[in-house]
Amino acid sequence: MTTKRDILITEVALRDGSHAIGHQYTVEQVLAVAKALDDANVPYIEVSHGDGLAGSSLQYGRSKTDEMKLIEAAVSVSNNSKIAVLLLPGIGTMTELREAANLGIHMARIATHVTEADVSAQHIQLTKDLGLEAVGFLMMAHMAPVEKLVEQAKLMESYGADTVYVVDSAGALMPHEVKERIRALRGNLQCNVGFHGHNNLSLAMANTLVAIEEGATRIDGSVRCLGAGAGNTQTEVLVAACERLGIQTGVDLYKMMDLAEEIVAPILQRPQEIDRDSLVLGYAGVYSSFRLHAQRAAKKFNIDARDILIELGKRKVVGGQEDMIVDVAAELVSKRNLQTSAQ
Amino acid sequence: MTTKRDILITEVALRDGSHAIGHQYTVEQVLAVAKALDDANVPYIEVSHGDGLAGSSLQYGRSKTDEMKLIEAAVSVSNNSKIAVLLLPGIGTMTELREAANLGIHMARIATHVTEADVSAQHIQLTKDLGLEAVGFLMMAHMAPVEKLVEQAKLMESYGADTVYVVDSAGALMPHEVKERIRALRGNLQCNVGFHGHNNLSLAMANTLVAIEEGATRIDGSVRCLGAGAGNTQTEVLVAACERLGIQTGVDLYKMMDLAEEIVAPILQRPQEIDRDSLVLGYAGVYSSFRLHAQRAAKKFNIDARDILIELGKRKVVGGQEDMIVDVAAELVSKRNLQTSAQ
Repeated sequence: MTTKRDILITEVALRDGSHAIGHQYTVEQVLAVAKALDDANVPYIEVSHGDGLAGSSLQYGRSKTDEMKLIEAAVSVSNNSKIAVLLLPGIGTMTELREAANLGIHMARIATHVTEADVSAQHIQLTKDLGLEAVGFLMMAHMAPVEKLVEQAKLMESYGADTVYVVDSAGALMPHEVKERIRALRGNLQCNVGFHGHNNLSLAMANTLVAIEEGATRIDGSVRCLGAGAGNTQTEVLVAACERLGIQTGVDLYKMMDLAEEIVAPILQRPQEIDRDSLVLGYAGVYSSFRLHAQRAAKKFNIDARDILIELGKRKVVGGQEDMIVDVAAELVSKRNLQTSAQ
Repeated sequence: MTTKRDILITEVALRDGSHAIGHQYTVEQVLAVAKALDDANVPYIEVSHGDGLAGSSLQYGRSKTDEMKLIEAAVSVSNNSKIAVLLLPGIGTMTELREAANLGIHMARIATHVTEADVSAQHIQLTKDLGLEAVGFLMMAHMAPVEKLVEQAKLMESYGADTVYVVDSAGALMPHEVKERIRALRGNLQCNVGFHGHNNLSLAMANTLVAIEEGATRIDGSVRCLGAGAGNTQTEVLVAACERLGIQTGVDLYKMMDLAEEIVAPILQRPQEIDRDSLVLGYAGVYSSFRLHAQRAAKKFNIDARDILIELGKRKVVGGQEDMIVDVAAELVSKRNLQTSAQ
């Protein structure tokens, strides 16, 4: 029996949600969650370290369980759902992608910073060569103007991506910004367009509905908001909102509600609220990895870490430029001193 | 110094938020929260039992502290903020309204079901006679068509309301429904228009921004989502989103973030997540008081309580009609039996 679906949901609680629990998933938990998602007829389930294949490390946080075992577990209980993985070139390699493919995954999502699509070429090509569905995943999409986003998405499409996602990693996009981005991609690409939201400004659901309205057909959600920062678009709520709007997800609403309450909620170690840290990241539009650096610099220069993060956001500083954080803090202090002496 | 503000925020954590903590506020807590809100320059702070003045009862939940003492405490520490109260005619009376007025409040919000504005006439008039600002608060606004809402809002305006609110009590409105409601009120009223959202479908922030876009200037929020159901529009996040959009709230963002994290979060007994219960209420669009009745009827008839709640929502059953719940359950069972025997 084929399910009629207007959008295809990818559930990311077993990947993005891994951030929320310090990458501590067990095989038993993944079996239980994936089985329930499969039973609720969720089309895709992503399973990987929070930072993608091979993310388990001192820098990104060590996984409790080898992710290949978790992927294998998810594949083993999925009859309806297809299993996906995330890969960030530079963290994961072709080796892990091949290994995951051998375990029976159906889709690989190749993620790069929004301006660095070119590093995804080989991985997208390999994904296709392995007979998998290929997704290009443009992260921190708020940091590039629309024209740049289109250019980068076209690159991913040219490498063979079946879908290109607008990824609001910091939860920093406003609905009108999502609208113009999805519209531009739909107008310039032949392939599917997707959207992945974060809830740092409490707009994940709104942004997702706007994306769907503009023609995005691949949509990410996380059960019980289980994701980095303030979490993602809450999947079971998305399914309910879509039903209210007449958008067919093909997902069983009651089963989603039940698995969220009975299987996923007990896994959460802390609630997925919008706390001060996640709000600041969304407001400033910066990487979560900047937070600790900013807090250290703030202490050293006796200023508010938020001022540093907001300035970093304005300057569109990207991952790898962490050494700029101290410079920015020093500049803010000298600017403040100048202002004080001028008064 | 006058603050320039495009919208005037009313913080409801000390009223709607009372639901979230079983009406257990202490004088010390209210002093701490109100003082911090005042310091952050929040224009209005509402303080009352969750169900408004005189709500403390077996039926609605007993307050730990006499609400007049809480109102007095909030007034005592407010230099910038004005203190407001909520009153539902039938629960609260003129006596409590006069008592609160004597304590130094500035605003009373008179709340009725969206189709029962006529019961607010005397209370709105008394509010004006007492020299207070008067707000008409049309609850469960999703249950009336736009024309009916306009008619009811006009009644409140005719009684003397300075502002009429669209109140999405069940968190059931979608953004396009908020848009048409606020637009219709703005087109038909001379007085201010306000919006009060709930987050049951994860759309409180989106609905609030749409309301502002359509000209609502009085906006409710609750710090850390502290409100009934899934909570309200999260105030500190709203202030951040407004700053991003160039909408002046006049509220200090950093101070709001700090008080949310340091003063309000520790008061919460359970996180304000969108759990199964709150999601069902938003999806069905029914009163939270129906939930227990539906669960009892579901058990008796061996059906899913959600089916009952959704049917109640379709029939637009209102508070006071709880006896219909068993009838609806019985009808659902006989319909199911008919379907089964026809197969």
